[in-house]
Amino acid sequence: MINKAFEHINKNETRFIKELQDFLRFPSISSQIRHKNDIVRCATWLKHHLEHIGLQAQLIKTNRHPIVWARSKSHSSKRVIIYGHYDVQPEDPIDHWRTNPFDPIIDEGFIYARGATDDKGQLFAHIKGVESLMKTNKQLPCEVIFLIEGEEESGGTGLSEYIKKNKTNLATDAIVVSDTAMFDENTPAITYGLRGLVAMEVTVRTADRELHSGIFGGVIANSVNVLSHIISKCTGTDGEIQIPGFYDGIRSLQNWEKDNIKRLGFDDDKLKSETGSKQIYGEPGFSTLEKIWARPTFEVNGIAGGYTNKGIKTIIPSSATAKISMRLVPDQDPYEAANLLTQHVNSICPDFASVEIQGPFSVTKPVLFDVDNPEIKVAWQALKHGFGAEPEYIRCGSSIPVVNTFWEELGKPVVLMGFGLDSDGAHSPNERFKIANFINGAKTCAYFLVNV
Amino acid sequence: MINKAFEHINKNETRFIKELQDFLRFPSISSQIRHKNDIVRCATWLKHHLEHIGLQAQLIKTNRHPIVWARSKSHSSKRVIIYGHYDVQPEDPIDHWRTNPFDPIIDEGFIYARGATDDKGQLFAHIKGVESLMKTNKQLPCEVIFLIEGEEESGGTGLSEYIKKNKTNLATDAIVVSDTAMFDENTPAITYGLRGLVAMEVTVRTADRELHSGIFGGVIANSVNVLSHIISKCTGTDGEIQIPGFYDGIRSLQNWEKDNIKRLGFDDDKLKSETGSKQIYGEPGFSTLEKIWARPTFEVNGIAGGYTNKGIKTIIPSSATAKISMRLVPDQDPYEAANLLTQHVNSICPDFASVEIQGPFSVTKPVLFDVDNPEIKVAWQALKHGFGAEPEYIRCGSSIPVVNTFWEELGKPVVLMGFGLDSDGAHSPNERFKIANFINGAKTCAYFLVNV
Repeated sequence: MINKAFEHINKNETRFIKELQDFLRFPSISSQIRHKNDIVRCATWLKHHLEHIGLQAQLIKTNRHPIVWARSKSHSSKRVIIYGHYDVQPEDPIDHWRTNPFDPIIDEGFIYARGATDDKGQLFAHIKGVESLMKTNKQLPCEVIFLIEGEEESGGTGLSEYIKKNKTNLATDAIVVSDTAMFDENTPAITYGLRGLVAMEVTVRTADRELHSGIFGGVIANSVNVLSHIISKCTGTDGEIQIPGFYDGIRSLQNWEKDNIKRLGFDDDKLKSETGSKQIYGEPGFSTLEKIWARPTFEVNGIAGGYTNKGIKTIIPSSATAKISMRLVPDQDPYEAANLLTQHVNSICPDFASVEIQGPFSVTKPVLFDVDNPEIKVAWQALKHGFGAEPEYIRCGSSIPVVNTFWEELGKPVVLMGFGLDSDGAHSPNERFKIANFINGAKTCAYFLVNV
Repeated sequence: MINKAFEHINKNETRFIKELQDFLRFPSISSQIRHKNDIVRCATWLKHHLEHIGLQAQLIKTNRHPIVWARSKSHSSKRVIIYGHYDVQPEDPIDHWRTNPFDPIIDEGFIYARGATDDKGQLFAHIKGVESLMKTNKQLPCEVIFLIEGEEESGGTGLSEYIKKNKTNLATDAIVVSDTAMFDENTPAITYGLRGLVAMEVTVRTADRELHSGIFGGVIANSVNVLSHIISKCTGTDGEIQIPGFYDGIRSLQNWEKDNIKRLGFDDDKLKSETGSKQIYGEPGFSTLEKIWARPTFEVNGIAGGYTNKGIKTIIPSSATAKISMRLVPDQDPYEAANLLTQHVNSICPDFASVEIQGPFSVTKPVLFDVDNPEIKVAWQALKHGFGAEPEYIRCGSSIPVVNTFWEELGKPVVLMGFGLDSDGAHSPNERFKIANFINGAKTCAYFLVNV
């Protein structure tokens, strides 16, 4: 069964690439209202394409951009949900693109376009995987439901609301998400852990208006000075978080994970040169991978206060604001982390200032899946056969909110199989997707559906 | 001689007010290019007015706005320079004005207009003082030179360059500046000390671009976190400056000053309600007046880094900048203070970040005049006779760069006699000047010129 599917994929590679190019031509930028029509055109094209393969498909309305839903028939009672998103990031900065971001070009084994890797290419690999089974068999070995959203790049809630409302109808045996990366160019990977996230906004006020620093300097507090003191008391110089209780309940790495991290290693020098940073930073006593995968962070994402235009204005700024977000690891709870930050900031804010804390925003729990789950074991085999190389188990420092929704609402671990590369330039100019990974991804999908 | 002058002032009060209204009608906003013509019209009006009184007057070109220069003839070899500025602050925010800022209105003993107290009204008091002596005597008791600039509110250097180039021609016995405030509504004051100023800009860099806080958070340093740590290590929570060596060489208050400060007292509750601050802040062990008059400060005037628009952007900001200024007291040197800050910031910047420091900007030395100087003693008598109340000796927490230029270039202490009130709203909407202070200021000027 799988051999025929692989043959179909190999034979039709040229057509698959042409179809992916068609898909990539839609500027389906979900955050820009002027592309609203392109979003609908893209979703409609995708629906027709899924119907053309032999799936039942429809557009599901949300408050913003439609979900593309599709289902295959199957005699099997098994069901697999495959997630993807057809919307893309804006193309800015357009000057940095070597080619038109919406006119996909093939060059030295890569396809270049906005959305190539994130996530049209990775999603389309699954669609072609499903096609390969449908064209070479009467029926699929399991029922497949595609849930493809158009709001991922703009923080939409349409899909998560849909999942919550339809959790009974969506009961499933496995959920597959391909919106992550391989371990390296030659090594596929299963991501079994994601960090969580919680964001807050902290505003310090010391007066009711900007004050002259000559007349009032020394007797009325400066909101930026106070905010800096507060921030400096949230982390040590080396990044160790100093919010009382913050590290309580963090789950230790298992022994196999520690061994795994050691074995995988990490090229710190490459990281330095890629980011233009002088030195790797962070909590003492942890390796780079440990810090990214399994340690929480406290970041000021932005700060503003007082006069920031050209020249000098000798004022005491009356208010200053920091946008703060914290990456969280199992078993930290985002609401608890937000509470701890709030308590700490309130307790260290001096009497001569007042502090206002907004949030929590972007609340996302950390996730960690047991790699012994049977779906994950099948996925490991699928990646091995699809890519011809043994996959690694990795974690990721980012958050994917929809993974939490699937896990919490449908009660199933999510199989995160990444077909992309870190060097693909997701969200950046000259985004690309390796054609070999597209084809191997399609094979991986087919293998997974046959064996799950 | 002085009695006739006082009579002249009393008799002509109504005309003086009308003339001041004419002067205030010019929107001579020096920082706005669209008012360039209004500046020239205002300077020309002033020149004609000074000629009309009987002075020799001319406009002196600078790179930007002209200086109005005028001189009286006198048999006496004594000379007094009177400084003022005819330019004004912008009227923003215009919505907060109850009347047109350039259509002066008289209401309950005050004249309301932009520039009323800062500095057209205070300057015009001197012009009317000089007029009162010229109209009631054949000659002035001393030669008077008016130096009236049009760039004070926009940081121009035209006048200081003129003074430096013409220091021999400008040799003088006394210099009078009225651009400060009385001690309170009923008490005139001589300001014998000003704080100095030095500004720097500190930029921290940790990477060559904004980075994703999920992928890089925990291993690449956050420039805002680092900058906050640096700022927090420049002052204690209570404002005590922690830059090594910063307090070295600060001159202690003399005993009479300590007694004076105690006697004058200060209404902390009024300051709190005027500024909307919860509590008076600052170095422990010093009273409010001591802190404003005789202690240095470290203020972040503005800070910017990362994402500061609406919503959340989970980035690690790669660079962050703080605009910093320090008020200085005798005998601190601005360049030395800048050096100490630079050394301290460089020494505490961690290895994983780089720091760039720009400046020093707005370099202004602190000034302190001996109140036993004969000109200051005459000024004390002049204020007493002009206002009918005993003046106080006070210092001011602000800096007036032209005072330093006069002192350094002409070698004479500057007599700072303020006719304004703190409640006049200089630089604010509904700026005003008390008519009684205008008239008493004219008398003070006349008394000073007769007795100096």
